[in-house]
Amino acid sequence: MLKQYITMKIVRFSREKLILWGVVEDNYIEVLKHDPFQTIQKTSQKIPLNKVKILAPTVPSKIICVGLNYKDHVAELSMAIPSEPIIFLKPTTSVISHNDKIIYPGNVDRVDYEAELAVVIKKKAKSVSVRDVNKYILGYTCLNDVTARNIQVKDIQWSRAKSFDTFCPIGPWIETTVKNINKLQIKSYLNGKIKQHSNTSEFIFSVEKIVSFISNIMTLLPGDIISTGTPSGVGPMKIGDTIEIEIENIGRLTNSVQLVGIKY
Amino acid sequence: MLKQYITMKIVRFSREKLILWGVVEDNYIEVLKHDPFQTIQKTSQKIPLNKVKILAPTVPSKIICVGLNYKDHVAELSMAIPSEPIIFLKPTTSVISHNDKIIYPGNVDRVDYEAELAVVIKKKAKSVSVRDVNKYILGYTCLNDVTARNIQVKDIQWSRAKSFDTFCPIGPWIETTVKNINKLQIKSYLNGKIKQHSNTSEFIFSVEKIVSFISNIMTLLPGDIISTGTPSGVGPMKIGDTIEIEIENIGRLTNSVQLVGIKY
Repeated sequence: MLKQYITMKIVRFSREKLILWGVVEDNYIEVLKHDPFQTIQKTSQKIPLNKVKILAPTVPSKIICVGLNYKDHVAELSMAIPSEPIIFLKPTTSVISHNDKIIYPGNVDRVDYEAELAVVIKKKAKSVSVRDVNKYILGYTCLNDVTARNIQVKDIQWSRAKSFDTFCPIGPWIETTVKNINKLQIKSYLNGKIKQHSNTSEFIFSVEKIVSFISNIMTLLPGDIISTGTPSGVGPMKIGDTIEIEIENIGRLTNSVQLVGIKY
Repeated sequence: MLKQYITMKIVRFSREKLILWGVVEDNYIEVLKHDPFQTIQKTSQKIPLNKVKILAPTVPSKIICVGLNYKDHVAELSMAIPSEPIIFLKPTTSVISHNDKIIYPGNVDRVDYEAELAVVIKKKAKSVSVRDVNKYILGYTCLNDVTARNIQVKDIQWSRAKSFDTFCPIGPWIETTVKNINKLQIKSYLNGKIKQHSNTSEFIFSVEKIVSFISNIMTLLPGDIISTGTPSGVGPMKIGDTIEIEIENIGRLTNSVQLVGIKY
């Protein structure tokens, strides 16, 4: 007998000044009674997907990212395989949603896309074993770890380069169940042209290992984001570019780049 | 005529399961009607200071720290003076309050104290000029940027070493007005013995410069913490040690160190 996987796309959205959660079914959203962290309870209300503004699918208390987690990216950079995950944090003020604009900061020379698979935490997690990790995961989404590359190189510390407002597009939704999370195609497209094309099978550290590792450092809270690193093929974006992050069975996150202060 | 400085120590505390804000007057707390970010309004209620549990004086959405900001510390490390502030983030789950325990993680070889002056943000701040910074500051407090030194050296990136639960003692309160913020004595005491003794006049970047710099990267929100770096004399703590951070005209923050899982 085949094991059944209940897949579900959880979306957070605004509609007539209300912020709501829902489940995407074809071109509709089935509205939920409340946030999805404890239970997922549908109302009878349905709203066409194209009638809402999609928001970032979580309001994290923190965003923890892993650097250098794809074998192909480490090879591309001629670096050694790390013995433990290298982590850094992005501020929550950097979060934007699907279709929001990435703002190109004024005094920055190069802004890169980085396609990443992100984990959304379901419940408080502290010192969780690799075996138990799945109980603490609500689902998965796409994340673009936007990086001011010249500042990353100058500072050595990665934090400033990755902390600018709008440098953390997340979405469009949370896929609750993915069969082989460590074997998914991940791609980025710049103006429709493929730039990154890899597979999470290139992970140095699996999703389970990363979440367990981080939970042994800091307490994870519902809605927190853990991003799992980017594969080879990162590169710069220009004003006006459109960048898309696509992960197999999860979704496609689209954003475009604009100058500070310019409203289109 | 002398300019008048209204100094005030704002404390956050718990009492009979309520979380309240107040102003410290001698050995009493004058209870406030609500948080101090918009207006400071006293009630008629007074509570003896020794009858409450002091909490961290803010619940920040983010904590941004500056590394290498004292000339004496840079000299001690034989490093070059940075041309711009080097920043990193600590997760909000690392925050503890005055008198709380710093937990020594199991698999860590060396845990250091780092005495720092921290700024508490009063209102939303984005791209603020150096001249306007003071309008966005609620006040100042003591912060201990606890650091797993061996992990900091191993990772090169500082984030993991500084992100363990309990690695961010803050407090005991917020001093709203300090006359010469860039000319204050700052000290740390390990088991009563002085270990760091410097002055914020050793700052490479002033408080005003740092807050302006960071506000040009990311939007600061009410209650956010900006910590301004540590002077020379950092060193390790052992289980059972007591560490105190004292800043002139601000206060003294006391914490002791205990092993994971041991409750005293």
